[in-house]
Amino acid sequence: MDDGRMIRPDAAALSAVTRALQSQFGNRFSDNATIREQHGHTLTWTANQPPDAVVFPQSAEEVSQIVKLCAAHRVPIIPYGTGTSLEGHVNAPFGGVSVDTSLMKRIISVHPEDLDCVVEPGVTRKELNEHLRDTGMFFPIDPGADASIGGMTSTRASGTNAVRYGTMKDNVLSVTAVTARGEIMRTARRAKKSSAGYDLTRLFVGAEGTLGIITDITLRLYGIPEAISAAVCTFPSVQDACDTAIATIQSGIPIARVELCDEMMVRAVNLHSKLALPEQPMLLVEFHGTKAFAQEQTERFGEIARDFGGGDFQWASRPEDRTKLWQARHDAYWACFTLRPGAKAIATDICVPLSRLAECVVETQRDLAESRLLGPIVGHVGDGNFHVNLLIDLDDPDEVQRTEGFLDRLVQRGHAMDGTCTGEHGIGQAKMKYLDAEHSPAALSMMRAIKQALDPLSIMNPGKHVG
Amino acid sequence: MDDGRMIRPDAAALSAVTRALQSQFGNRFSDNATIREQHGHTLTWTANQPPDAVVFPQSAEEVSQIVKLCAAHRVPIIPYGTGTSLEGHVNAPFGGVSVDTSLMKRIISVHPEDLDCVVEPGVTRKELNEHLRDTGMFFPIDPGADASIGGMTSTRASGTNAVRYGTMKDNVLSVTAVTARGEIMRTARRAKKSSAGYDLTRLFVGAEGTLGIITDITLRLYGIPEAISAAVCTFPSVQDACDTAIATIQSGIPIARVELCDEMMVRAVNLHSKLALPEQPMLLVEFHGTKAFAQEQTERFGEIARDFGGGDFQWASRPEDRTKLWQARHDAYWACFTLRPGAKAIATDICVPLSRLAECVVETQRDLAESRLLGPIVGHVGDGNFHVNLLIDLDDPDEVQRTEGFLDRLVQRGHAMDGTCTGEHGIGQAKMKYLDAEHSPAALSMMRAIKQALDPLSIMNPGKHVG
Repeated sequence: MDDGRMIRPDAAALSAVTRALQSQFGNRFSDNATIREQHGHTLTWTANQPPDAVVFPQSAEEVSQIVKLCAAHRVPIIPYGTGTSLEGHVNAPFGGVSVDTSLMKRIISVHPEDLDCVVEPGVTRKELNEHLRDTGMFFPIDPGADASIGGMTSTRASGTNAVRYGTMKDNVLSVTAVTARGEIMRTARRAKKSSAGYDLTRLFVGAEGTLGIITDITLRLYGIPEAISAAVCTFPSVQDACDTAIATIQSGIPIARVELCDEMMVRAVNLHSKLALPEQPMLLVEFHGTKAFAQEQTERFGEIARDFGGGDFQWASRPEDRTKLWQARHDAYWACFTLRPGAKAIATDICVPLSRLAECVVETQRDLAESRLLGPIVGHVGDGNFHVNLLIDLDDPDEVQRTEGFLDRLVQRGHAMDGTCTGEHGIGQAKMKYLDAEHSPAALSMMRAIKQALDPLSIMNPGKHVG
Repeated sequence: MDDGRMIRPDAAALSAVTRALQSQFGNRFSDNATIREQHGHTLTWTANQPPDAVVFPQSAEEVSQIVKLCAAHRVPIIPYGTGTSLEGHVNAPFGGVSVDTSLMKRIISVHPEDLDCVVEPGVTRKELNEHLRDTGMFFPIDPGADASIGGMTSTRASGTNAVRYGTMKDNVLSVTAVTARGEIMRTARRAKKSSAGYDLTRLFVGAEGTLGIITDITLRLYGIPEAISAAVCTFPSVQDACDTAIATIQSGIPIARVELCDEMMVRAVNLHSKLALPEQPMLLVEFHGTKAFAQEQTERFGEIARDFGGGDFQWASRPEDRTKLWQARHDAYWACFTLRPGAKAIATDICVPLSRLAECVVETQRDLAESRLLGPIVGHVGDGNFHVNLLIDLDDPDEVQRTEGFLDRLVQRGHAMDGTCTGEHGIGQAKMKYLDAEHSPAALSMMRAIKQALDPLSIMNPGKHVG
């Protein structure tokens, strides 16, 4: 009996699919080894598992044709955005066809009166904001990389603005997707809210391409704030920095960004971005609003921070200073390499209830020291989410083993605090092993029943997520 | 072959279930005709379809036992909160057991540092806010009725605060639910965000009890604003009132509430609540923040409103005046009866993109006049959502027919504007006929595949929603 699990397709099936794709897509098809490897490449230490072929569709109709063809021959389909995923989402463990959406870059419509827009999945977040600049609106979700909107939707991404603007879950109004049967469907209408049926939109957000391929996304937009003020502030300890964030949020200050860097991360950022920030635990904060309100928030935050020993404020009110500051934060992943040139970086992603964050970070720092591992920490403190950017030598088996032990303990620590093994990066391949601890058996079996019902041939990004 | 559709259980199955329930639950079980009718009662014109029995569990374990028993005999289960649903959610078209959650009223935990709490489904929104009062926090979602949190979750409810605080979709962090097989599961951990698997939380929010029974809910809370200012403002036309709301939101003013009442609704509110509001299209607005910021928002809104002909501002800064104002708004459903004592009220619920709202309201007013129907209008203008409270004489077949035609045209009008047939009330029984027009065949078949996979016996609230 068929248990719905993917197996590597036989040579005849694969050959039938690739020949048909080559014939239809011409130079928008490739089975070149370099291209294939690049499409299996991920920013992780998971081994490269290239797809058998890569195809570059330009429309939902073409995606539908590809899916129908692959379904007929039971060949896996792996959606591909910009390849910036961190947990092995784009690898092809069973081979198959990588569907690269980089030619689907149309911004289909922008509706200023409704504060929304419709874009194709290959548009990146920076491209969208560039396009929107003259409209007075912006799209706030900002993972570290200049990821594609399709990929951000599929991993339920967030970033530094999530404390104020939410994650992709909160900012996708609807998607059009091609189902595992090749049908084109839309999850919801453009109304801001609806109670008409199951929330298919939220089912696709974070599904990592395992239920279908997203071919357009309707996004919420926001007016660019009249005034923005940003600052860095140092603290005696991580606990003080976290307590400041908690008190700020509790007091109702609608802080737009509140990012934690630990001592080592500040050092890396200084080295990489030629800054001279004091090498202590630090919050990077930003306030949005009218001029008077941004000023008021700034002052109130200053009072709270002082209560927790915060000092050495550096305000960046000029746009160029602010850009420099946030670029430094966004470059944190790359900055880490300055601490250990030539090392491989592994970005972790834990999220716990806010009240447990300081404790979790402090215990993690102790674990790093005891494990003799180098791992600067950045955190989206307003969400209880932080990343350890581990810098490791993959050629040292002992260090690799110590890293694996550390990663498992990190997730256990998060789970013990009622947290999750991933706040924003997703499951991909690398975190599948944590799902049994993350969810109850009944919840996991519900997820698998949904997968089985919607992708009975298990062709949509198999070997990932809950599949 | 079994198509998964519910049929009325046979007498032996039903008798086995009711005898077992009676024996286990004693006086927390009833098959009294009045109690049964009351549990099929809804605030609609749908005919009463009472369940065969009503049971009052006190824990998730008891709910699990009830579901396992009903599943073994294939007897329908209908979850029941406060019975304030508006689309026939609690009727029992195939008989079965109504599971009344009114004894599940524990507030399990409140976490001030995390701004969240865990409550049982029978807690009502007012009870929760009463409990929270001394903590400085509140829960903002406020449908007209004092509904249960379980019911609000299941219908994806919202209310007047949604423009600022979102709907239940945005404010439920996780639920514990009993599945159709009687297993107890939790949809997510208490972290503020997660990318670990399909979003089961959002699948249960709005599922109307068709996938399982919710036994506790983790909710986001908010700090009570330091200052609140509220006002009513009249406008020359509905278009001017809507344009004021659009411009306010676009300008980035984080308006907390912006409610439209049309002329007729103002008249009803005046009569019911002994107010003397000018009988013109009107916005009721509210601003939350620090004292200075609430003041600033108020002034900016005033400027925008004046640009669109707004006048006759009445500010309510004293809490008692504000309470009176919002109580009048919340009583709108009841106020309508003053316009036609003895009539039956039917509350509609359409939601369109904000840019189309004024057009939709104006066309609807014209349709009402042409159809010779009485229907005051209230709208959550910030969301593009409005309700016509139709007052009809059910004994007049011609009026009933005109009403049915009007309701169908209202939904068609909403759909033509890329809107939805329900912004916050849900599908229940009454809106099932609109689903084919609301969703594409592939989307509906995906919803039905999910239902079939998770409730293969079709015992969970059958004959409703997409079932």
